[in-house]
Amino acid sequence: MPRPSVREQLVEAAMECFHERGFNGTGIQDIARTAGVPKGSVYNHFENKEALAGEVMDRYAASRRLEMLGDESLPPVSRLRAHFEYLAADLERFSYGRGCMFGNFGAELANQTDTMRGKVDARLSAWTDAVTQVLEEARAAGALTSALPPGQLGQFLVDGWEGAVLRAKVTRSRAPLDGFFDVFDSLVV
Amino acid sequence: MPRPSVREQLVEAAMECFHERGFNGTGIQDIARTAGVPKGSVYNHFENKEALAGEVMDRYAASRRLEMLGDESLPPVSRLRAHFEYLAADLERFSYGRGCMFGNFGAELANQTDTMRGKVDARLSAWTDAVTQVLEEARAAGALTSALPPGQLGQFLVDGWEGAVLRAKVTRSRAPLDGFFDVFDSLVV
Repeated sequence: MPRPSVREQLVEAAMECFHERGFNGTGIQDIARTAGVPKGSVYNHFENKEALAGEVMDRYAASRRLEMLGDESLPPVSRLRAHFEYLAADLERFSYGRGCMFGNFGAELANQTDTMRGKVDARLSAWTDAVTQVLEEARAAGALTSALPPGQLGQFLVDGWEGAVLRAKVTRSRAPLDGFFDVFDSLVV
Repeated sequence: MPRPSVREQLVEAAMECFHERGFNGTGIQDIARTAGVPKGSVYNHFENKEALAGEVMDRYAASRRLEMLGDESLPPVSRLRAHFEYLAADLERFSYGRGCMFGNFGAELANQTDTMRGKVDARLSAWTDAVTQVLEEARAAGALTSALPPGQLGQFLVDGWEGAVLRAKVTRSRAPLDGFFDVFDSLVV
């Protein structure tokens, strides 16, 4: 029975490697070295690099804290804004260089592996649904400026966020995220 | 002196490979095979894979037809919409699976090579400037709904487009682009 801590070290190491060099730019050897374990032991825990990437996606998704979007102690619009501000703060920790793992894997792999494409699609959809739910609450409370249906607005906020995060990664600055918040305020608040 | 046609074949082949498998997923051997030339001849034309990627970026950028944005025979808003519709039609040819090369290289490489990061940044900036210019014309003509400054709106349209293209790639559908056009219409028309 493999020790859980090695598995944990591998997932953490893979997360770091995939963020830094992408999926195809990362070898199993890189992950093993980063985790400080022998290369062979990776295969005691994961069938292949893609299986490890799937686990990393799950871990990353959990760290997006979608549960913030259901916290009814905050009014819907403040709650939604706080969610994106939380994501922005997470990006700032790495000087905006890492981007979003959903976007990174989507851009790199959607055309290469249907499994990863499906995983990214499912994560972005679940996120869009959660954002849409908050927008529906905001609309019911009369707190939405835009006349667009919440579902459409929710999709555009998530896609717009992904585009802004990509630009933040490319410019290494927060400015594109500030631009997102300005448009957010004009559509939502 | 290398024959220009081989160079041309290599750029075309590299464009296809990078779109299909990304930068790190593509080897010089893949490009040579796709072009139908011996691997060694790649180095007669390009110093390395990154030099080839730079050339592919230039070629891709030219195919974005930014000059459409300066065509004053169309009113500014129709011109801007036609530009994005042109890009959407280009994506449709590949069932939305390829995405945008700026976004793909940005997501995959911005954290790995500062040269490629700079190239993607420059291309997205030039594009944003051209879009902003049209929005300024639209504002002067009283044809902008949104009260946001054209520069901010221009950046958000480009970033929102990139996010929508990523989602189209991940869902293999036009729906996210339609969502972009709906928001475009609510902000711009």
